[in-house]
Amino acid sequence: MNQVTYRLPKRKDGQKTFDHIINTAKKLFSKKGYQATSINEIIAKSGIATGTFYLYFDDKFALYSYLLTTYRKLIRKAISTGIAGASTRYEKERLGLRAFLKFAWEDPLAYRIIWESMFADQALFRDYYETFSRDYVRQLTHAVDEGEVRDDIDLETLSYILMGISNFVGLQVLFRKSLTDDDLDRITDQVMSILSSGMFRP
Amino acid sequence: MNQVTYRLPKRKDGQKTFDHIINTAKKLFSKKGYQATSINEIIAKSGIATGTFYLYFDDKFALYSYLLTTYRKLIRKAISTGIAGASTRYEKERLGLRAFLKFAWEDPLAYRIIWESMFADQALFRDYYETFSRDYVRQLTHAVDEGEVRDDIDLETLSYILMGISNFVGLQVLFRKSLTDDDLDRITDQVMSILSSGMFRP
Repeated sequence: MNQVTYRLPKRKDGQKTFDHIINTAKKLFSKKGYQATSINEIIAKSGIATGTFYLYFDDKFALYSYLLTTYRKLIRKAISTGIAGASTRYEKERLGLRAFLKFAWEDPLAYRIIWESMFADQALFRDYYETFSRDYVRQLTHAVDEGEVRDDIDLETLSYILMGISNFVGLQVLFRKSLTDDDLDRITDQVMSILSSGMFRP
Repeated sequence: MNQVTYRLPKRKDGQKTFDHIINTAKKLFSKKGYQATSINEIIAKSGIATGTFYLYFDDKFALYSYLLTTYRKLIRKAISTGIAGASTRYEKERLGLRAFLKFAWEDPLAYRIIWESMFADQALFRDYYETFSRDYVRQLTHAVDEGEVRDDIDLETLSYILMGISNFVGLQVLFRKSLTDDDLDRITDQVMSILSSGMFRP
């Protein structure tokens, strides 16, 4: 993974400018994608001097990796807030999935930013999922030790299965026209039912 | 979804030129992504006259949608070849997953092409997965009728779960340094075990 090459602002007015650049870039990436958006466009649309951009970012990739890091944190935060209070792995999976689906529904750009990172930088993309997988494995190991999760399955594979389910049921949700809290509960329950008993008849 | 705006060659020498343009474009997309590759680059790298490109494709998006259609067919073919001879849904899932993972390992560009379509054209991306989901639901309905798959789960959600598992275990495979047939079997068996009995201890 490339080195971090962005600098966070230290003062309040700097923060305002920084946030404004980020929001402008988000809008442009959302519309045209990362690859097709140029630094000059970000600068022009932000209405800032060229030097101001480089005060915070070495290049477009630096801004992008800041965004990816931010989304990673936001997704983790949404999940950890969602699972607060859950004590079993089952409850953590259920509430974590629900929180992730809600996050995806409310901020579809997160999806695009992370998925496009495969093109922007393959190492960044890989690092994103490998880190997520390692954290998951650590949590699942604990659940195996507690006797809640089966001890005869490979936890790395299980972590990719769980990430795949979240991400693709996330797509199913994004493709919908509307999403109520009841819809969210129903979809989450379906997933949990399959995670509990499998898809086949006994 | 946009209308198809590519024209397949009718003669043998035309086919050769067409294939050459496609292969050049694949290499460029693979390296720089779809968004950052221009028609002029494709034409220059192919060593063809500008008019030759437009003989076959209305624009870059037309070439892209030809590639996406081709990958869709190749993936379906790989899966249907893989599951030939399987009679139960269980065997179809197992062999289908194995074939998909093998395909992803051998042609990583397929992944990138399909995932980048989210940026190239959101309607195309959505159409790709919604079509795949509908076909899956049809097959799963049959398996429910046969009494093999549980009749108390929403099959659309199940289809996204199964696509998510394939795609993300596909990532796990792509991130590996090597992949033997034994690795493939082991990973596939792990997934099937979870699809059969769930991840939790009874």
